[in-house]
Amino acid sequence: MKSAVRDGRVIPESEARVPVSIREVFFNFSVYESVKVLKSVAVFLEDHIDRLLDSAGRLEIPHTWSAGQLYEFVYRLIKADSIDRATLRVQLIGGSSPMLFIFYTDLPAYPAEYYRRGVKVITYEGERVVPEVKSTSLLLNYVALREAERRGAFEALFVDRRGCTIEGTRTNVFALSGSTLITASSGVLAGVTRKHIIESAREIGLDVAYRCITLQDLYDGAFSEVFISSTSMGAMPVGRVDETRIFKQHQVTLRIHQLIRTLEKDYVNQA
Amino acid sequence: MKSAVRDGRVIPESEARVPVSIREVFFNFSVYESVKVLKSVAVFLEDHIDRLLDSAGRLEIPHTWSAGQLYEFVYRLIKADSIDRATLRVQLIGGSSPMLFIFYTDLPAYPAEYYRRGVKVITYEGERVVPEVKSTSLLLNYVALREAERRGAFEALFVDRRGCTIEGTRTNVFALSGSTLITASSGVLAGVTRKHIIESAREIGLDVAYRCITLQDLYDGAFSEVFISSTSMGAMPVGRVDETRIFKQHQVTLRIHQLIRTLEKDYVNQA
Repeated sequence: MKSAVRDGRVIPESEARVPVSIREVFFNFSVYESVKVLKSVAVFLEDHIDRLLDSAGRLEIPHTWSAGQLYEFVYRLIKADSIDRATLRVQLIGGSSPMLFIFYTDLPAYPAEYYRRGVKVITYEGERVVPEVKSTSLLLNYVALREAERRGAFEALFVDRRGCTIEGTRTNVFALSGSTLITASSGVLAGVTRKHIIESAREIGLDVAYRCITLQDLYDGAFSEVFISSTSMGAMPVGRVDETRIFKQHQVTLRIHQLIRTLEKDYVNQA
Repeated sequence: MKSAVRDGRVIPESEARVPVSIREVFFNFSVYESVKVLKSVAVFLEDHIDRLLDSAGRLEIPHTWSAGQLYEFVYRLIKADSIDRATLRVQLIGGSSPMLFIFYTDLPAYPAEYYRRGVKVITYEGERVVPEVKSTSLLLNYVALREAERRGAFEALFVDRRGCTIEGTRTNVFALSGSTLITASSGVLAGVTRKHIIESAREIGLDVAYRCITLQDLYDGAFSEVFISSTSMGAMPVGRVDETRIFKQHQVTLRIHQLIRTLEKDYVNQA
């Protein structure tokens, strides 16, 4: 039987339940993190906890948990179920009695071909509310990803009111133009993997520019490579945007991807 | 002990709980209705059920419940707890095993002074996602209403990217100019009370125009009366917008409000 953690206490996962009638549950007044577990190590856990506390702070969710406690709670669950590999979710629900849940699911595995040929993505008009915060107010993401899947695509990229391709439903977006790696300047989540990608790109001699990736430029072939990123994917090359543009070059993307995977391995080995 | 209804079955309210780890719970893939109960009658229940089924249809939430069944489930709860007055929530959560919950809270009572002098509202930049659907993806509403309360206001009105005052966090918005009642044309919820207000306005000889209520016009005094509407409030006059504009006239608003209350009473008496 799987376990979960509630407010620091290990419980059976089946008991990780919330009352539907509580205002903060009903209104999705909650923030979360997805953390990758490899060899029983929660990868970049400090970064994720920092961001969770930052999200909670931005939404002014009152709670009393410290970074140290959150760190300890995560390892309590890893030990309780001897978790080797998993995606772990840490969710903090606001309210007069805030609730903290930690639970886990399988780590997604992506076929090698995705990295070799690039994935298909669609574009979807929309913007998350309070985009700097990793909140569970994710209806738009659910609907956009479902639309992507219906059209045989792997991800949907949100295009905002200015025509900028800002982020995916569960990813950040990058485009390469010459030796410049471009990514959105604002209105997106400060992805943990995004941060490592920006560092890795600079390491291999790329400039990083924070600006709008216009849908028009994506369609017109203004970029040599395009990729999306997340904790589980690393840097995932994009092969096709809607029905329009085919990207066949992924060398730089895959080089960055390897650097990310090396960073993960180093973290695990040093833990 | 309070009861609730789950999938048609009466249960103790304390058991109306959902697992946090379910994708559709996590992503707020759910729709809802708030229904007013007066003298043990669920007021305009048919309208609310129609809209719930419409919301579910727009989000393509698969389920097998009919309008007739939903109607019956609501009265099952009213009878189980001999509910006289309440706000009842009907929530349908999507997924491979959709879940239907019905629970209730106290009917809010608003001081007579609110209707006499009008309430204070603030304006808040933002738009709900999928605004035609009454979904529980309500983080923006939660944050905006909290901001209103902090500033001593009763409601926050969302101003969209075009500068239009489209709707409140739990209300529709109306403005009176001469003998024309103005309300948003699209991007808002088809409120049940809104529908009755539009009918009532026509009955008393007003024209109804669906167009943008600009924030600038609100500030500049282009309107003689402004009001918000909801199931619990009826037509609630607005006395002040931000720190800027004071509306002292509420005659037309209150006349419409009385017509709404009469419609409710007629519904209850005929039930």
